[in-house]
Order: sequence, then C-alpha cells, then structure tokens
Amino acid sequence: MITNSAPSAIKTPYTVNLAQGDPEEKREEIRRYFHETYDAYEALFEPLLEKVAYRTRADALRHPLIFYYGHTATFFMNKLVLAKLVDRINPSFESIFAIGVDEMSWDDLNESHYEWPDPDDVREYRNKVRDCIDNLITTLPITLPIGWESPFWPIMMGIEHERIHLETSSVLIRQLPLKLLDANHPTWQVCDRDNPTVSNELIEVPGATVKLGKSRDDAYYGWDNEYGSYSKDIETFSASKYLVSNKEYLEFIEDDGYTTRDYWTDEGWNWVTYEKASCPRFWLPQEDGSYKFRTMLKEIDMPWSWPAETNYLEAKAFCNWKAAKTRQPVRLPTEEEWYRLLDYSELPDAPEWGKAPGNINLEGPASSVPVDTHEFEHGFHDIVGNVWQHTETPIRGYAGFEIHPLYDDFSTPTFDTKHNIIKGGSWISTGNELMRDSRYAFRRHFYQHAGFRYIVSDAPVEIPDDSWETDPEVVPYCEFNYGKEYFGVSNYPERIAQICLDLATKRTRGTALALGCKTGRSAFELAAGYEQVTGIDFSARMIRIGVQMKDKGYTQYTLPEEGEIVSFHQANLQELGLDGARGKVDFMQGDLANLKSIYSGYDLILLDTLLERSYNPEKFLESVHERLNKGGLLVIASTYDWQKSVTEQENWLGGFKVDGENVTTRDTIEKLLSANFEQLGEGKDVEYVLRKTARTFDHNVVEVTAWEKK
Amino acid sequence: MITNSAPSAIKTPYTVNLAQGDPEEKREEIRRYFHETYDAYEALFEPLLEKVAYRTRADALRHPLIFYYGHTATFFMNKLVLAKLVDRINPSFESIFAIGVDEMSWDDLNESHYEWPDPDDVREYRNKVRDCIDNLITTLPITLPIGWESPFWPIMMGIEHERIHLETSSVLIRQLPLKLLDANHPTWQVCDRDNPTVSNELIEVPGATVKLGKSRDDAYYGWDNEYGSYSKDIETFSASKYLVSNKEYLEFIEDDGYTTRDYWTDEGWNWVTYEKASCPRFWLPQEDGSYKFRTMLKEIDMPWSWPAETNYLEAKAFCNWKAAKTRQPVRLPTEEEWYRLLDYSELPDAPEWGKAPGNINLEGPASSVPVDTHEFEHGFHDIVGNVWQHTETPIRGYAGFEIHPLYDDFSTPTFDTKHNIIKGGSWISTGNELMRDSRYAFRRHFYQHAGFRYIVSDAPVEIPDDSWETDPEVVPYCEFNYGKEYFGVSNYPERIAQICLDLATKRTRGTALALGCKTGRSAFELAAGYEQVTGIDFSARMIRIGVQMKDKGYTQYTLPEEGEIVSFHQANLQELGLDGARGKVDFMQGDLANLKSIYSGYDLILLDTLLERSYNPEKFLESVHERLNKGGLLVIASTYDWQKSVTEQENWLGGFKVDGENVTTRDTIEKLLSANFEQLGEGKDVEYVLRKTARTFDHNVVEVTAWEKK
Repeated sequence: MITNSAPSAIKTPYTVNLAQGDPEEKREEIRRYFHETYDAYEALFEPLLEKVAYRTRADALRHPLIFYYGHTATFFMNKLVLAKLVDRINPSFESIFAIGVDEMSWDDLNESHYEWPDPDDVREYRNKVRDCIDNLITTLPITLPIGWESPFWPIMMGIEHERIHLETSSVLIRQLPLKLLDANHPTWQVCDRDNPTVSNELIEVPGATVKLGKSRDDAYYGWDNEYGSYSKDIETFSASKYLVSNKEYLEFIEDDGYTTRDYWTDEGWNWVTYEKASCPRFWLPQEDGSYKFRTMLKEIDMPWSWPAETNYLEAKAFCNWKAAKTRQPVRLPTEEEWYRLLDYSELPDAPEWGKAPGNINLEGPASSVPVDTHEFEHGFHDIVGNVWQHTETPIRGYAGFEIHPLYDDFSTPTFDTKHNIIKGGSWISTGNELMRDSRYAFRRHFYQHAGFRYIVSDAPVEIPDDSWETDPEVVPYCEFNYGKEYFGVSNYPERIAQICLDLATKRTRGTALALGCKTGRSAFELAAGYEQVTGIDFSARMIRIGVQMKDKGYTQYTLPEEGEIVSFHQANLQELGLDGARGKVDFMQGDLANLKSIYSGYDLILLDTLLERSYNPEKFLESVHERLNKGGLLVIASTYDWQKSVTEQENWLGGFKVDGENVTTRDTIEKLLSANFEQLGEGKDVEYVLRKTARTFDHNVVEVTAWEKK
Repeated sequence: MITNSAPSAIKTPYTVNLAQGDPEEKREEIRRYFHETYDAYEALFEPLLEKVAYRTRADALRHPLIFYYGHTATFFMNKLVLAKLVDRINPSFESIFAIGVDEMSWDDLNESHYEWPDPDDVREYRNKVRDCIDNLITTLPITLPIGWESPFWPIMMGIEHERIHLETSSVLIRQLPLKLLDANHPTWQVCDRDNPTVSNELIEVPGATVKLGKSRDDAYYGWDNEYGSYSKDIETFSASKYLVSNKEYLEFIEDDGYTTRDYWTDEGWNWVTYEKASCPRFWLPQEDGSYKFRTMLKEIDMPWSWPAETNYLEAKAFCNWKAAKTRQPVRLPTEEEWYRLLDYSELPDAPEWGKAPGNINLEGPASSVPVDTHEFEHGFHDIVGNVWQHTETPIRGYAGFEIHPLYDDFSTPTFDTKHNIIKGGSWISTGNELMRDSRYAFRRHFYQHAGFRYIVSDAPVEIPDDSWETDPEVVPYCEFNYGKEYFGVSNYPERIAQICLDLATKRTRGTALALGCKTGRSAFELAAGYEQVTGIDFSARMIRIGVQMKDKGYTQYTLPEEGEIVSFHQANLQELGLDGARGKVDFMQGDLANLKSIYSGYDLILLDTLLERSYNPEKFLESVHERLNKGGLLVIASTYDWQKSVTEQENWLGGFKVDGENVTTRDTIEKLLSANFEQLGEGKDVEYVLRKTARTFDHNVVEVTAWEKK
C-alpha cells in the first residue's frame, strides 16, 4: 500500500431521489452521495501495493490504472468546466486523464505518448477536485426537481460516472499481476463458499408486453440512453433457473466447445482464434488439466458453483452448443426478454429494496457467490446481482432519444450494433447501475463481471442494424423529412403531400408514385390517402432511409453542428403518426430520365424537386401521361434552379432566351403537358428549409403546379 | 415600287396621354396612334423599288431591310405572347424576325443561316398582325391611367418601338444603293435650301441644377431607362449657337483632322484607321476633291449650311481639334448639360408644342435643313430637331431604375459604357423620341441622323464606368447589402451596424474598422455614428462595389433568376439615406490573417462573418487589442461554419473535440480575448438571407458577441 490510512469501509447508498424532499436536505444528501462514491473509488485502489501497479497495463489494449485513477476526477472537472460552473484546477492532468477509457489501437497506446504522473500527485489532484466539488455543492443554488438543466445534474453525472468506473476498474485490477496487489485487503475479500453444483433447468415465463424507457420527469438520475419509450410483445419462453455455472460451462469446454467452428459466430470465431482462447479469461488452466480461478485480488481454487464469467461471444457459443445438443432453440435473452423476466419476478426498483435482493451493491463479498444462493420469484436465481447477464441486443436509443449536451458521447459511440447490452448488475454494481431503467453495453469480446442465463424461445431475435446515418449528402434530408422545423417553415414533404391529398379529394386514390422522394416522408404521408405508394429516388443512399423507416419504423442520424461537432437525432414514424403507413409504402431506386415502364397505372404522380436535378427531364414529361390513369393527377414541385453541373444546358427546360425572349421552365412544362393535361388552378409557392449546420441553411421556394390527365 | 398603292401622307400625332380622358375615347386614340404609326412604317418602305432592295444589306454588319420590315410586327407579337394576350400568328416569322436589330458579328450574318421570306409574304403577315392588334385594342379592358401593368402597355410599347425603327430603318435606307430606291417618292422629299454659311459663336449658359428622370406616374409612355431620378449641379458653360455645319466641319477635315492621331480617342483612332475614313459617312468624296452628299433617297450637291452628320468619335475628334486650335476646353455636352440647355431654352414638352419648334416630327422635309433655320431662346438654334446631338455621356439607369418585365433587354445591354446618349431628335424623330425624358444611346461608331453642338466648359466630364456587375460571387452580396429583403428578414449589414452603434452610445466614436465588409453597406451604416470608417475585405471584387458606391453613389448588378435568365438591379446610396456617408468611408483590400499594422487606433472593430472565412483566424484575435483604443469595442459576428476547403482544420477556432470534449468557436474566442477584453452582454443571434436565384437562398444565423477592451 502506498497510503498509510486504514482500510475503508465502503458505503453504497442508493442514487438520490432528485424530485422529492427539502432542497437543503437534498444538498446534503448529494454531498454525502458524492463523498461516499469518491471514497469507494479511492478504496478500490487501496490494494495496489506499489506505484508500479498504477503504471502497469492490466489489459494490453487499455491504459494503466493511473489513468482511471485520475480520470473520474478529471471527468467531474471537464463536465463542470463545460457547464461553466468551475475553472480548471490542473489543465495538464485534465487533458491527460480526459480520454482513453475504451479499448484503444496499438498506436494510441505507444508508451512514449504518455508521461504518466506520480500516483501521489494524482491523489493530491483528486483531493483538490473533491474540495472543489464539495464547495460547489455548498454554493450552487438548488431547486427541486433537479432535471437536465440543473447545475446539480453534472454533479450527479460525475458521481454516477465514478460508480461505473468503480466497477470497470475493478475488472482491470482483476487482470493485474497478483504480486502488485494486496490479496488480503479487508475491504475486498471474496466469497469463501463453493456449493455442491446444482443442475440447471428451464422455467416458463409467460408472454406479455414489456414497456421500456424512462420518462423525462423520472425522479432519478439517468443516462441519455435510458430515456424515451419502447414497447414490445414478448412471446412465452423458458429461461434457465440459474445463471450458467462454471460447472455447467465446463461441459461446453470439454465437448470441444472452443475448437468447434459451428458453435461460434463469425465474430466469435475470429476472436477465439486470435486470442487462442480455450476457456474464459478468469479461468487459469493448470498443468494437470485442472483450473484455478482469478478473483479481483487473488487466485483461488475453481469455484464450480459460481457463475461462469465469459464475454458475449463465449456465452453465445455456449448457447449454440446447447441448442445443438438439445435440439432446442437455446439462446441468450434479448434486452426485452430480460425485462420480461424482471417484470415477472416483480422485483421493485432499487430505492425500494431496503436490502439488496441478491449479490449486488457491494452488500456481499467482493466476488461472485454460488448460483443457487439468491432465489427470486418463480424459482429463478440471480434475476439481478452476482454477475451481469449478456443479452442478444446491441444497444440503441429508444424513440425520443436525446443527448445530454454536457455528455454527447456517452451513448452514441455505442449505438453501432457492436455493443451488446448487459443486464442485472454484479456484486460491485451500485448507484444507477442498480436501477431498472439503466442500460449498459460493451463490445462483445469485452470482459466484465458478467455471465449469462440462457433461454429457449422460438421467437426470432431481431438485431437492429442501426448505426447512425452520417452521409453528408443524406443527413440534411433526414432532418428535412423527419426533423425539426426552422424559421417557422413547416415540414415540406408533409405539405407537398397534403397539397396532393387535397387535390385528390373525390378522385380515385388507388396507387401513387412519389418521384424524388428523398428519404421517404412524402411517400408515407401520401399513404394517408392512397392505397399503395411507391417512392422513387435516384439516390440509393436516400432510399435506404425510407426503407429503414418502413422496415423498422425509425432511423437515426447525425447532423453537423459546427465544424466536426455533430448532434444525434432519431426519427420515428410512430411519433409522426405515420406508423400505419408502413405497409402501404415501397421504395425503389430509379432514374427520371430512364424510368422503367412498369411504373404506370397511377392515380397520382408527384414529381418533387426532381426536374431540375435530372440530366434529361424532357423525355419524362413528354410521356408522363402514359403512366397515369385517366383523370389522374400530376403534381410538379420545382425551384427551376438549373445547374450546368447537373443538367447540360441543352437539356434545361427553361432559364434561357429563345428568339430574344426569356423562356421559363414553367413555359416549357405548360407546352409539354398541354396536349394531355388540364392545369388545375395557379402555381403555388411552397417554402422549404434544409439544415446544413446549426447556423446555416438552404431556404428555397418551390412552385407547385397541378395537372389533370385529360 | 412593289406595291401599287398611292404614296402615303404620313401622320405623326404626339404620343398618347395615358392618364387623362375618357377610357373609350382613349381606346380610339390608341387605335389611331397604332394605325398611323404602322402606316408611317409601311410608308418608309414604299421607296424600295425591287424585292432585292429588301434583301440587300445596307450595312455590312446589319441584317437586310426585310428583317426590319418584319421585325416591328413580330415585336408586337412577341411582347403580346409574353403578356399572354395573343397566340402566335406565324411562329416561323416570329422566330426569324425576333432578334438581330443591333450590329452583329460576321459569323451571325453568314447568309446561309438565313432564308429570308418574300416581302409580299411579310406584308401579308404584317397585315395579319395589324388586324390582331386592332382587334386586341377593341376587346381589351381599359382603365385609366394606363400603367406598366396594363395590357395596353405592351401595345404602346410596340407602337413606340416601331417609331424607333421608323427612324433607324431610314438610316439603313440611306445606305442602300441608289438604284434600288425611288428618289422621287413624294413622301420623302429633301430640303432644297442651302443657306449661305454662318459662322458659329459661343453663347453663355448660366449654371443651374438639372433634375432628370421620369416619375412612375408620368402620363406618357416611357422606356425603362427614363424612370428614376438624378440631379446635378451644372457649372456655367458656353455652347455653340448653331450645330456644327458641314462647312464648319470641313475646316477640321482640311486641317488634317482625319490623319492626326492626337485629336482622336483610342477608340476613335481604331475606328478611323480600320474604316480608312477621311470624312463623314454621308459625304461622298468626288475625284476632283469636292463632295456630294447622300440623303435618304438621293445624292445631292454638298449642302454646306446643313448640320454635319458624324458619329460620336468624329464629333469628339472635332472638339479636340477645336480645343487645340482655340486653347479652350472645347468638348461635347454631357447629358446633363444638354438638359441644362433645354431648360434654359424654356421649350415645353412635345405634347404642348402644337407645331414643331424645329425640323422634327416629320413636319419638315425628309432631311436636315440649314443650321440657322430654327431659332430658340437666347439665340440658340436646333435645341431640338434637324439632327440628333452627340453627348459625352454613356447611358446608364437613373436611381430607381427598374426593368419592364416584358422587355428586359431594351436598355440593360446598352448600360455598358459603350453606348453614348444622343439628344434632341432629328427630322424623322416622332412619338416618344420627342419627349423631354426620352433617352436613346448608340455605340460611339454608329451613324444616325446625328451631328453635334460643342460647348466650352472647365467642368470635367465624369464618365461613369458602370457596366452591370455580373460576377457570380459578388452579385449575391450586392443584393445582400443593398437590395430587397427576403422571408421578412431585414437587411443584415444595417442591423449589424445598428448593434455596433447601439453599443457605442456614450463612447468615443472616432474611427471604425469594418472587417469582412463585402460590398460595403456596413461601413456606410457605421459612418452614421463614426467620424471615419474603413471597410476591408479580402476580395478586391467585393471592395470594388463599395468603392463605386463611395465614388458614384450607386451600383448596378444582375441577379440570376432561373438558369441563365437574370434581372437587373440598381442600388443607390441616396435612396438608402446614406449619401452623406460617402465622404466618411474608405475601402481597402486586406487579409485578416496578415492585416497591416497601420490598421490600428480604432474605437470600433467589426469582424463580420470573417473568422470562419479566414485561413488563419487565431493570429488576428490574439493581437486585436493592439488595434483598438482603450475602451474600444470589438464586435464579432460569425456562423462558426468552418470549411476545410477554406480553413485547414488545424486552424479552426472550434468545431472539434479536445480531450474528448467539444470545443466551440465561441469557447476559443472567449479564451483568446479574456485577457484583454470584457464581454458585453450575451451572444445575440441575427439572421441573414443571401439570394442565389429567384427561388433559392442561403438563410443563416450568425452569433454576435461584443467585447470591450480593458
């Protein structure tokens, strides 16, 4: 030990109710919660015996512990500076300890890039930060409820952030060489029991609807990814009574689990071959073929009744092996299925626990306990606690997801389909981690104090393929179609569709074609009046968003704010009242100048800001009557903004002189259509605004003309 | 003659009062005016003896007469089609006869490009057009006053257009071979007098202010270039009593005028050497050294007492010769000086004449008369009439110039500084050409029935160098600074300047620096509160507009409407109430990243949407306090819209992450300025709209922050 203080007794109160109570008492409650969290994190580092322990990398792809020791204090400072509540204490430390939490590339970890400070200096820095925050808690104005906008929110953010690192740093310490650690530190003693192994069995969980997502006015601190709403009907399934124990997992290993390609996903097989893994990371194979087991601070005999701790890839391979052996659809639960199990267990949310219902919140030993220790309703064990439980579900935002402005990269980098959700918490999970709504996700090859429960279900697992759309050509049209209004100009595709629907009153409204549909909004809107709508755009990248909307009901995209800073947005058909249109809309890629003849027989064709973006618009107009039913409508919206880079000048419909007189696009449209169409009413101007950055926009005015086929 | 009708007696009523009278009587008056104009134009072609006369080019660079014969009818049709009042009568003719009035390039005139119709067919077409317009005059609704928007306006436009061609075609006929013409046609007989020559003398014209430009509610038809307002103080000058006679001009010729380089402008010398000219075009040098003279239809003995008919270049060379000989500042009058002479003569406007006050309106012979025939007030002769009088002034629009939408290229192609104004009218000038406000201009080497009067004046001639700004980078900023408002967003540079002026209340307001001033408006606006303002922009092309505004008080520019169709705009400091600022503002080209140290000692520096367009903005901000006086203001407006193409990313002030946290431009500005400045108040959003085409705009929102130097 490098400090002489006595070992700490860790206190782990529940996270603070931010809505109810006396403000000044709340101030003191937050102060206690802050100090006890800070204390707990300090206590975690007490077993590090030498300064070298701080500088030694526990994981080849992660920073040494010194980084994490400084990081939680620096995080407080960086968020509070961002919130303009404090000035910097140590700009150098606050740069060194700012980033690098996650796995890094080899190059980033080149030692020569880092000059790690002395742990004593970092401890001194941490103390200064502690004083600073304590002072802030004293002086900041406080009103309840404390919401996203409150100056206390970044303080809660820093506390809960430190609680996450309390857990993740304990995983790193579990990978440090034993000689650097005080195995006998009294605060971190492991469970001394290893029960006779129990054989696992399946218990039915009746189907029901689960509702997920936290309300904006929830009384407790939450990370951005918890808010919003999502509901899902869960079919009846069966789930294993216990988490998979080391003993149960051994069967998989002994049945050539780690060498049988078929059990592994592609990603899993890549991992297992790259790592040359033959068992979970914390199993220590001995020369005689037996195993020892690594806890946070020491090596012990293999505790066969404890839960198997694996990464997702190993858990998934186990399930596939089990499915092959049992010929049953064995797999991990999805996020929603895990919640169904939680709901079924009728466990109240953490603040009502009084006492931990399982091996969680540091109320037990500093390790797992046998899987049959903590029983919940219906015979299940370890609904929460002991180790985290892997799920099949890559994390994403719920409908209504928004990012807290002080921490815009907490969740979004993980919304990449590569980070799977873990649920239930471990023996060292505290604070927000205990809460029903909390959601944490890690890369599938990462280790936490995590194992798994398997289920048997015929329900397919829908893996959302929803990374964030970042294509700079496409994202402005995501916002344009599904996002906010700017300068008081209402949603353009909605208005264009409404013009069509108004014109279509008392007409046949069978099929409609939306040409130039971009990311699809106009097609969904037209479905309110037409039986079937086809949206066509030249750009497959645009169409992809429409298809996502149709298939999944939502899409996610980033928008440029300033320079390379982006914001994150989610659009959702349900919120727009368009969910019912999903079955009536199709999207196809197509070229106006060469549109297939199958696109015929329509009651409406909407040609939306497309003429002026086609390399040869005349051909289409000359024959468009052949694509419409008698009495059918043609609605043309155009800025008449011809660009030589898009349309060779000889193919422009207007914007030039003939015989000395100006010929406008409108003139030519009238000329081309007059033989087969009657014009309905006058041209009508409709504005639209296309957001480019937070402060720059295109603001255009289309003319809309409507034509009835004779 | 190719028709058998009797020679016409030409009637030349004054142009119609469009504001007063009974509407139905007005309808009949317009009908008479139309037919009498159409008749007069037909009569002009009566002396053409053979069809070949129609197809023979009078001028090598002009179409043959057949084009002009058809053109005036086609003009009616094209304008009325554009006004959606009629359908086409003969689309082929209406294309053939549409364009090519002016001098053309050799290539355009390649005969193989043209298949000229038979004159009889054209006559038949003209008759159909006559019937069509007569019918239109009968059926169109009529209300008085008849203004720009009235359907009778394009009818008046067609009539006055034909009256112009009555004159210009007579000049072309004057260049046809004599054998193709009936020299004895009774309608077109020349003056048979040649007085003894008088010697010219100078008469003083006292200085006064002249006010030019026609009011929008004037009762008479006007071309676009006549409207607007312009006033000028004219110094006392002397003007020649008579127009320069052939006899007086002969002195110049005999004094080696055509071979002495010094008398000619560069353009004049180019012309005289290219044309190998040795005398005016209608002088016919004989082998014996004497001259004959060409009238419209025949050759006569040299009428020495008639006015010399020259182009501008010859008139100017004569003046220069005269100046050299007399050592007096002899030159042509400017447009304004000509008007001063007209005002001094107290001649009423044409509709009040009763009888022509000179050889004009076809009330005399079909030629000039001796220069001492028609005397006006103060002893001057030919104030109007006989021949047009060249002026020094290239034509341009007055303040408030607007283009009639049905004829957008009547004037603007001549606003190129290459077309000089002629004044006063000739023997064949009629209709609008008689009116005080009418303004016609031709290229300086063109011949009309035009001569000149010289003046002696010390006043310099200001030749406006004001073609239309068409630079696609610059014209949006002309409109942005001096043009209309769009989407209800008020003028941006005016508001930015007002923010500065509001902040400057009760502060020292000596000198101000407007950085990123674009085309200059903000600098002019700041001059309302500061003694001296310097506007700086990186682009010399932008600055040029500001300099024009300062020097001349106005600028002209085209704006893209749709495709290659443009509209024409004039901006005028007087109209904007900023004329008084001209003496307080300077413009310089400068680079923010490398701004000279002389730009120091300011009480205000405005940095307007420039940081984000500089390749290295930090250096300036670091030292800007050195350029300000104590207590001086720094006002920064920015969209924070960094583009890699403009600013290398390493030089951005914000829009990136440092140590994992977003750094905004605003953060960096605060950091860079905090040592030397106090921020005044909060950032303030200000919108601006930049017009790109009639239907496409940039709509941005800058943040404005203000800083006081400590």
